[in-house]
Amino acid sequence: MPGRTARRRVLRVTLPADGRPGGSTGRADFLASEEPLGIRVDGTALAMTMRTPGDDLELAAGFLVSEAVVRSPQDIAEIKLCDGAACGHADHHAMGNIADVALAPGVIVTPGARRNFLTTSACGICGKASIEDICVLPHAPLAADEARFAPEMLVTLPDRLRDAQRVFSRTGGLHAAGLFTAGGELIVVREDVGRHNAVDKVVGWALLGGRLPLTGCVLLVSGRASFELVQKAVLAGIPLLAAVSAPSSLAVDLAEQAGLTLVGFLRGPSMNVYTGARRLSAAAC
Amino acid sequence: MPGRTARRRVLRVTLPADGRPGGSTGRADFLASEEPLGIRVDGTALAMTMRTPGDDLELAAGFLVSEAVVRSPQDIAEIKLCDGAACGHADHHAMGNIADVALAPGVIVTPGARRNFLTTSACGICGKASIEDICVLPHAPLAADEARFAPEMLVTLPDRLRDAQRVFSRTGGLHAAGLFTAGGELIVVREDVGRHNAVDKVVGWALLGGRLPLTGCVLLVSGRASFELVQKAVLAGIPLLAAVSAPSSLAVDLAEQAGLTLVGFLRGPSMNVYTGARRLSAAAC
Repeated sequence: MPGRTARRRVLRVTLPADGRPGGSTGRADFLASEEPLGIRVDGTALAMTMRTPGDDLELAAGFLVSEAVVRSPQDIAEIKLCDGAACGHADHHAMGNIADVALAPGVIVTPGARRNFLTTSACGICGKASIEDICVLPHAPLAADEARFAPEMLVTLPDRLRDAQRVFSRTGGLHAAGLFTAGGELIVVREDVGRHNAVDKVVGWALLGGRLPLTGCVLLVSGRASFELVQKAVLAGIPLLAAVSAPSSLAVDLAEQAGLTLVGFLRGPSMNVYTGARRLSAAAC
Repeated sequence: MPGRTARRRVLRVTLPADGRPGGSTGRADFLASEEPLGIRVDGTALAMTMRTPGDDLELAAGFLVSEAVVRSPQDIAEIKLCDGAACGHADHHAMGNIADVALAPGVIVTPGARRNFLTTSACGICGKASIEDICVLPHAPLAADEARFAPEMLVTLPDRLRDAQRVFSRTGGLHAAGLFTAGGELIVVREDVGRHNAVDKVVGWALLGGRLPLTGCVLLVSGRASFELVQKAVLAGIPLLAAVSAPSSLAVDLAEQAGLTLVGFLRGPSMNVYTGARRLSAAAC
C-alpha cells in the first residue's frame, strides 16, 4: 500500500528581509503523495484519477455514486484492491493502485452525464450551456429535506475540519472534505490532493456503510465549490454544502435547481448563502 | 460568448463578534463563470472541460499540447469556436461552448499517456505507480535549458501575478497561471476555475503565437503543483515551474526526471526548491 505522504529532499531558500539574514538549507520534507488509481468495473477500465493513496475503496465507491452508477451498497457485489496476482503480475503484488469493482446483477454502467452527453450528441455541446445538458440529476431532488442548520454551528466547522486533518499540517498540500451532523459533530473527514477525490472518499465511506442518502448532514470542503462538487453532494443526498472559498456560477445554478443549500466564504463569523437560505435557522436570517 | 463572471444573488450572514452586531443582507455578487467547453478534433469529441469562458481557443490549443497531440502552430489546420449554424443548430448561434479543431495532414490524435495506458493495458494500472507508466515524456527533455533564475526575482512574482489578475479580486474564485521572463517581466496571465485550464490557456497562447518551446521562461501558478501541471510545463518547454503552495510527491518525481526546476511555497521572502536547484543563480544557493 502506498503511503499518504512521501519524503523528498528540499532546498529552503530565504532572502534577507526585515533585518534578518537570508540563507539556504537542505532538509527532508513531507509531501502529499499523488499516485494514479485505476477504477475497473466488471473487468473494464472505467476511469483513472490522480489521488492521494488511502481509503481507495471508498474513493472508487464514491466515484461510482457520483457517476450515478450505484446508489446502495447492494449495487456492488464485490470491491477490492487488485493484488496483482490475479492479473498475472505477481511481482506487483499488493501495490494497490487499481480498484476492482464487480457490480450486482442488473446494475450497469450508464456513462456519467457528461461523458454520455459528449458521445451521443452529434453537435457535442455546441451552444448548450444549460445545466440540463451536462447533468442528469432529477429536478429538485433535495426539496423534501427539511433539515435546518444554525449559522452559529456552521461558523465552527472550518476549525473542526482543520483540527481533524491528519496530513495537511504535515504537507500543506491536501484538500479536505468533512461530513458533519446538523449539530456540528464531525462524522468523517477525508483528504486528497484532489478536491473531488476527497468528496468521493466521504461519499464512498457513506455508501459502503449503508448510510446513503446523507439526509440532514453538512458537507464542508476546504477550497472552492464547483459544479462537480455540487453534483456529488446532491447525488449523496446532502442538503447543505459549505465551502471555505468561492463557488462558481454553475455551482450556484445547479444548487438552486437541485434544492441544495450552498454556502461559500465560510470564514470567521461570516458566510455567503447562495441558495436554499430557508434551511438556515437563526434569527439573523 | 459567455462571460467570465456572472452575477448571482447572495445572502451575506455575519454573526455578532468582537462586540460588533451581526446581521444579514442580500446583495448581488460576482462569481467566476463555469461552463463546459467541448474540444472536438477532426469532427470527433475528444474531451470536455469545465472552464471559465474566455481564451477558449487558447485553452483548446494548450490542451492539445498537453496531450502531446500538437507541437507547433503548423500542426493545426484550423481552430475555431463552433458557431452552431454549421452543426445545424442555428438557434444556438455563437454560444461558443465548443472548440472545433482540424489537424494538419499527418497529425493524428495519439491518445494522451494516461488514457492510452488505461485502454491498452490488460491489467490497468495495477501495481504500476512509476512515472513511466502514466507519462510518455522523453527522459530529461529540459536538461539542455541553461537558463538561470535569481531568487530575488522569483519572490516578486506572486505580487505581479496578483496585480495582473483581472477577475480574481472580483470573485475570489479563480486560479491563475502567469508566464514570466527570466528577468521577471510578465508575458501573459490567464485565469480559470480550473488550475489545469489556466495553464492550458497560457500554453495555447504560446503555441498559437509560435512561441513554443518556452525556453528560459518561468511559469507561476496560484495554487499547488500537481503531476499534471508539471507535465504541462515540461511539454511546453518551460524550465521553471513555481507554485504558491505545495507540490505533490509525483510532481517532484516527474520534475526530477524531466530536468524541470520546481519551486513551491513561493511566499514572502522564501521558497522551497524541490528539483533543479542548479538553475537558481543567487549566492544564497
